[in-house]
Amino acid sequence: MEKITKAASIGGGVIGGGWIARFILNGIDVTVYDPHPEAERIVYEVLANAECAYEKLLTVPLGQQGKLTFASTLKEAVADADYIQESIPERLNLKHKVFAEIEAFAKPNALIGSSTSNFKPSELQEGMKTPERLFVAHPFNPVYLLPLVEIVPSPANREDAIEKAVTFLGEMGMKPLRVRKEIDAHIGDRLLEAVWREGLWLIHDDIATTEEIDDVIRFGLGLRFAQMGQYETYRIAGGEGGMLHFIEQFGPALKWPLTKLMDVPDYTDELVGKIASQSDDQSGAYSIRELERIRDDNLVGILQALKVNNWGAGTTLKEMEQRFRERAEAAISDSKLNFSKPLALHEVQVRGDWIDCNGHLSEHRYLQVFGDATDAFLQLIGLNKEYRDRNLSMFTAESHLRHLREVAGGSKLRVETQLLAQDENSVHIAHEMFCGTEELPAATSEHMLIHVSANDGQVCAFKSPVKERLAEIWTAQSTIGVPDMQMDPFDPSLRSLKRAES
Amino acid sequence: MEKITKAASIGGGVIGGGWIARFILNGIDVTVYDPHPEAERIVYEVLANAECAYEKLLTVPLGQQGKLTFASTLKEAVADADYIQESIPERLNLKHKVFAEIEAFAKPNALIGSSTSNFKPSELQEGMKTPERLFVAHPFNPVYLLPLVEIVPSPANREDAIEKAVTFLGEMGMKPLRVRKEIDAHIGDRLLEAVWREGLWLIHDDIATTEEIDDVIRFGLGLRFAQMGQYETYRIAGGEGGMLHFIEQFGPALKWPLTKLMDVPDYTDELVGKIASQSDDQSGAYSIRELERIRDDNLVGILQALKVNNWGAGTTLKEMEQRFRERAEAAISDSKLNFSKPLALHEVQVRGDWIDCNGHLSEHRYLQVFGDATDAFLQLIGLNKEYRDRNLSMFTAESHLRHLREVAGGSKLRVETQLLAQDENSVHIAHEMFCGTEELPAATSEHMLIHVSANDGQVCAFKSPVKERLAEIWTAQSTIGVPDMQMDPFDPSLRSLKRAES
Repeated sequence: MEKITKAASIGGGVIGGGWIARFILNGIDVTVYDPHPEAERIVYEVLANAECAYEKLLTVPLGQQGKLTFASTLKEAVADADYIQESIPERLNLKHKVFAEIEAFAKPNALIGSSTSNFKPSELQEGMKTPERLFVAHPFNPVYLLPLVEIVPSPANREDAIEKAVTFLGEMGMKPLRVRKEIDAHIGDRLLEAVWREGLWLIHDDIATTEEIDDVIRFGLGLRFAQMGQYETYRIAGGEGGMLHFIEQFGPALKWPLTKLMDVPDYTDELVGKIASQSDDQSGAYSIRELERIRDDNLVGILQALKVNNWGAGTTLKEMEQRFRERAEAAISDSKLNFSKPLALHEVQVRGDWIDCNGHLSEHRYLQVFGDATDAFLQLIGLNKEYRDRNLSMFTAESHLRHLREVAGGSKLRVETQLLAQDENSVHIAHEMFCGTEELPAATSEHMLIHVSANDGQVCAFKSPVKERLAEIWTAQSTIGVPDMQMDPFDPSLRSLKRAES
Repeated sequence: MEKITKAASIGGGVIGGGWIARFILNGIDVTVYDPHPEAERIVYEVLANAECAYEKLLTVPLGQQGKLTFASTLKEAVADADYIQESIPERLNLKHKVFAEIEAFAKPNALIGSSTSNFKPSELQEGMKTPERLFVAHPFNPVYLLPLVEIVPSPANREDAIEKAVTFLGEMGMKPLRVRKEIDAHIGDRLLEAVWREGLWLIHDDIATTEEIDDVIRFGLGLRFAQMGQYETYRIAGGEGGMLHFIEQFGPALKWPLTKLMDVPDYTDELVGKIASQSDDQSGAYSIRELERIRDDNLVGILQALKVNNWGAGTTLKEMEQRFRERAEAAISDSKLNFSKPLALHEVQVRGDWIDCNGHLSEHRYLQVFGDATDAFLQLIGLNKEYRDRNLSMFTAESHLRHLREVAGGSKLRVETQLLAQDENSVHIAHEMFCGTEELPAATSEHMLIHVSANDGQVCAFKSPVKERLAEIWTAQSTIGVPDMQMDPFDPSLRSLKRAES
């Protein structure tokens, strides 16, 4: 089967919008069909949240996005699609109607995933002419950030259709989990339903409020669940005796009344009102929009923390980021830059955790941004993976920074880079950092980089193609004036010290 | 009641050891009683894990720890304690026996917390002479990292005893959650039991393996649970209609067979063996010790990520770190340093996420470490919170760094600081960074800092007591030779560039 490049989303609510955002940001064109009058607004709101989250999530530029089109009919939406995701309300007859329409108008090989959280794929496939290509692809909200997608086939599915879906959704930065047998509510929602039902009893019996239950989760078991789940956590609790020892001990507890889950409380108006009012007390100070942003910022931070440890959802992020990095590097290498002016190679938004207690960009984050600009410059001169694989690299020997203006959280920064000098084994570059639309730089830096052989750790001469590429850039750059940054501020007499603004 | 300064732990297993580590690292003396022959080894192993985690968790020095003592009798362990934590096996008659002994030998006002996960406080209090001071203080493993502790009183408790326990455990960096009414297994373990029972069915019916269930948790719902719990998450899902809208919709699902929790599978040898063998397939490549380290690194990263957003467990960490910071600042202010040599003010261990893809300290992390050393120097000259509250502060105007030697992950770094020059409104300082026991610096830096009034953003003269403190330090420091770092590497001809080693 050919590669998937075009997707369709039937449904543009919160879940449909989340799918659309994930596809678009990962470079896939999406056509949307949703007759709801607010659909376009909702999709663009979800997409704005997702873009904002991805800018913080990824340490590389977002690069080229897919194209978003709103179709006025289902036929138009699915006509060219290789992958179609259904995210309409949970009514089986409505879903059957939509699948019949998709079969009538889509390409015969197009894959069809359903976001259903309740229905089994065999129920969805009833009455279809081509049931072999329809499966459950159940995501978790927010779809653009949470990697998990449960892929549930029925016996009617064609194996290659399921494999292709798993590959495609993996390339979208997701963690496709193929469920072995179909079951009502799949896996994740069954676990959530168990917690939900137990929680209802706790609220009903006035043991805890919604806020207290949430606190038990997020200050305790939820921190474990974000990285190891339940079995691996309990394996550790079992200590050197391991899992067998642990579960043998745990057995008798199954007979204890440790949950009330043999029973479900009556869903009276009183209970419903109690939960709603407790939730208002807990979270009413925030709008839903604010809660979404807080949630996304938290998820971004957690995913980045797990990426550092190359564990769980962090591994998925690492792989996704690598795909973005390769695209960005290819874009720099292919770019037709005008070398006879300063080079605009790096842009970034100031992340929340870059801000110090005064509300400004921390000192060392300036160097981080400049360092990323240096990396982009190295990419430009051909110092890429292929070159490094020859055991050649460049290291910074010295740096000189000037902090000229304060930079606030959320600022968009762009760096302009100039080659000040070069010889056979080193370069002297300068960066100027601009904040938003300001014309004066917020900071400047100069860096001395030396070309080193990893074989013996010694300085050595540039090799092709870096040597030629550097010469080409130098020919153009040497005609530009040198920026005013080569101060000598370290005169021990201190007399030369001036604030840059003055 | 007086402040708690001494604690006792009855039991030195994984949970007892976790309590001990939390107390010790937060500056409380602990005496331990556990007749188990391996207790001392286990406690020291847990403490080593905890120290390692805290060094990564906190951005400030750990400072003075509490004293750890192993007692040979329960009497000896509890005699001086203000707070006694019981973490012995879950056998009610054994616990009753221990509580009777504690009552016989402890101070009459000493608080007694039980780590029990199963028993209600009223059951534990049966037969006690002073039931009013015994309560459940149920933590979550690893106790030194997870903030949650469920404080469960019975009607027999004295209100001031419970309040004092909540305050004390809060000061230990925990999130004490006071449970409104006693109930079997409290709150957290009931939620966990619900997930556990549902999972047993999924494994029993071959819907999923232990690894697949864990993946559903850690790639999906667990990422949500680490920061918002269930009700706040669902509030968002309810969209602009809010929680009432959401739960009204959710009602009918309670009648659906979305979980099997009305029933529990038979705990046959076959099921037990199946779980144990699936867990081996999932996690058998790691030893329990390795899994503990991985878990702790993940929790450290997640907690730090949440700290950045000042949310949930991150808020608890932020408050704990602030207490450590105040202790560290007090220690620097009180220190009797010899000013006539370079000042050793900052030490830190290289964190995992400071390492670049080459396995070495990232460029900007050098500046971060130097920046923290600068902060310690500012603390030394009296630029503390009190001084800043007068709207006076110092900012870095320029920096000059030299990277001399590579620094690997996990390295212990120490920075020596020298005052090179000062005038009425600025200082010129130099840092040298040493790695482990190496005698030559791995990097050096110079910084120009200016004294600024926050009222008008203008440079202004130092005020008392910073002015006098600086003069005192300068008198001693000006007699030391200037280190060899004031190079002029930014000569455009590049001819002066030399590797620092050569």
